[in-house]
Amino acid sequence: MRNVAVVGIGQTKFGEHWDRSLRDLIFEAGMSAIKDSGLEKEQIQGLYVGNMSAGRFAGQEHLGALAADVLGLRVPASRFEAACASGSVAFRNACTSVACGMEDVALVVGAEKMTDVSTPAAVLSLAAAGDQEWEAACGLTFAGAYALIARRHMHDFGTTKEQLGMVAVENHKNAVGNPYAQFPFAITLQDVLEAGMIADPLGLMDCSPLTDGAAGVIITSEDIAKKMNPVWVAGSGQGADSLALHGRKSITEMDATRQAAKTAFEKSGLRKEDIGALEVHDCFTINEIVGIEDLGFCKKGQGGRFVEDGKISKDGEIPINMSGGLKACGHPVGATGIRQIVDIARQLRGSARNQVNGIEHGLTLNIGGSGATAVVNILSRELKK
Amino acid sequence: MRNVAVVGIGQTKFGEHWDRSLRDLIFEAGMSAIKDSGLEKEQIQGLYVGNMSAGRFAGQEHLGALAADVLGLRVPASRFEAACASGSVAFRNACTSVACGMEDVALVVGAEKMTDVSTPAAVLSLAAAGDQEWEAACGLTFAGAYALIARRHMHDFGTTKEQLGMVAVENHKNAVGNPYAQFPFAITLQDVLEAGMIADPLGLMDCSPLTDGAAGVIITSEDIAKKMNPVWVAGSGQGADSLALHGRKSITEMDATRQAAKTAFEKSGLRKEDIGALEVHDCFTINEIVGIEDLGFCKKGQGGRFVEDGKISKDGEIPINMSGGLKACGHPVGATGIRQIVDIARQLRGSARNQVNGIEHGLTLNIGGSGATAVVNILSRELKK
Repeated sequence: MRNVAVVGIGQTKFGEHWDRSLRDLIFEAGMSAIKDSGLEKEQIQGLYVGNMSAGRFAGQEHLGALAADVLGLRVPASRFEAACASGSVAFRNACTSVACGMEDVALVVGAEKMTDVSTPAAVLSLAAAGDQEWEAACGLTFAGAYALIARRHMHDFGTTKEQLGMVAVENHKNAVGNPYAQFPFAITLQDVLEAGMIADPLGLMDCSPLTDGAAGVIITSEDIAKKMNPVWVAGSGQGADSLALHGRKSITEMDATRQAAKTAFEKSGLRKEDIGALEVHDCFTINEIVGIEDLGFCKKGQGGRFVEDGKISKDGEIPINMSGGLKACGHPVGATGIRQIVDIARQLRGSARNQVNGIEHGLTLNIGGSGATAVVNILSRELKK
Repeated sequence: MRNVAVVGIGQTKFGEHWDRSLRDLIFEAGMSAIKDSGLEKEQIQGLYVGNMSAGRFAGQEHLGALAADVLGLRVPASRFEAACASGSVAFRNACTSVACGMEDVALVVGAEKMTDVSTPAAVLSLAAAGDQEWEAACGLTFAGAYALIARRHMHDFGTTKEQLGMVAVENHKNAVGNPYAQFPFAITLQDVLEAGMIADPLGLMDCSPLTDGAAGVIITSEDIAKKMNPVWVAGSGQGADSLALHGRKSITEMDATRQAAKTAFEKSGLRKEDIGALEVHDCFTINEIVGIEDLGFCKKGQGGRFVEDGKISKDGEIPINMSGGLKACGHPVGATGIRQIVDIARQLRGSARNQVNGIEHGLTLNIGGSGATAVVNILSRELKK
């Protein structure tokens, strides 16, 4: 298998795009990634689209064909779906195809247009990421599932609502000045604690928003990439767990994350000490805490304390979500995995707005549903010899 | 890249399964493929699910995780979508992963549960395979799109409604005795011509039905396969065209099919004369005629005459849809591409109910939407030296 690299990145602003369609968003993200790479559109040999639920949000399936159409590409084009991890799954499959020589240049676009339906309809659509028969049909919303996780984490480990809130405060702080973020402003801990309750203990400020947006990356084989400005794909892993929470050994652990991280670290030959920044899936504040733990950056149960002690700040032990995370960037579900890769690539190029100094390797954790799918990607400035 | 083979096949009966869920269908298809292979479930390293629209049909996305859950697999699991070509796209990605050594054994399941919603809701959902903004929103149903293709084919080439009808008659004849088929009975040309009109010139008997069903295959690398009962994947190709009909050079030609066939034949090193049987996507009768032409088995415009002359019969020039095709087997959209592969594998194993004698190579053509995606797979008893 050949080494592969990200050589082009792009995205739309994330937010509520009332005047733009899914088609428009895919076009902008795809073309901006192509332009950033400096390659010609004609060099692209495969198109990989990450999208969770355009069927429900926009009445449109067949997203690969839609993207090929709007981008003027006549190459194999398919859609990849694993709920909120759809973007990362598209990315992984593209990397595999390029690594094995099926293609030399691939475009991956993640996209979701969520605000063209009513909020209750969107909440129902998102519940389709969990278990329809055993969870959604019983009335368990997505916020409800994460509230169960949060409540159990508080019970078992003493995690506090304040610690959850600090995740949101940190991520909003990081988003200030991010031109692509839906909510590029700071909030206080008091804002979080006083926000309306969504699913106890998660208030409005513990939840990522409904968002329209798209992001894209160009992936090439090593021989092409080394003549360009490459960010290397050092390792990638994908893990699985039961779809419904009731099937898990523990609801405060995501075994899918542990499997994905193990695979990604093994493939990269790196250790967690090598990683300079993380993008961690904070669809709800509790998920960032659980993610930090399951990635191995602190012990199980210590994630709340880890955040409270300032270890996830830019000058802390491991800078997390320098972009603003899902909470402040917004969470167009199919786009998020690609947006995370775009933001880590910006860090590794040294061109990030909220730049971490001396970073050599970065990691993304993208979660599908309440943890039934997890994808970890490790990206590097230089490949380990 | 390593050679890969299909070593296990299975499927549910196709039909209206009022008493069974999507979960049940995936379980039966997956387990029957595993059992057929003789491998242990623990040997499976990746799970690939083809599904078009469970979000709309069953309120369930995240189909990879659902399938992993119900099958008791804890391996990377994702869903692949390209409308009615979803099954084939899942198959292609699985073949790539096994060929390049990411995995040695993969399970591919295609599934769709279409009858739990009202027929108008199903028709709306299927329109999501075409162009929502430029076709569906203007009222163009899927039958309508194929009716436009049929009408133009009749105008340009003199194709007759009787010739369209003969496609349905042939496919129903082939389905007689097929225990997996939704409609395993013969019909007459008069039945087709007298059926209620759906979208002129396509009557009810020119249309494949709404169907529940699932099909599965096990794919392994060459070293494992050669100790088993392998059907080799000799070549695979995927093509793309504009999503809406108005973007095509011609609406009676599917350029996606031509690209897919070209790639698949080149990779296999075979010519059309080597192929002993086809499974051709007959979502509407006109599509089988167009498919035969674009695959190169007759000249453009001659497909209707080709059918009328009996060349697609079991004892004809090239036996097509010995299974009964989508028309008589039924068309659970995400399952169809896998079901086609299962039926060609039965032919190549020599165990088909409607067996073609002396067959060495078979081909599947699976179309997404009105031709924006096409996948061609060529399967062989023995790999060409």
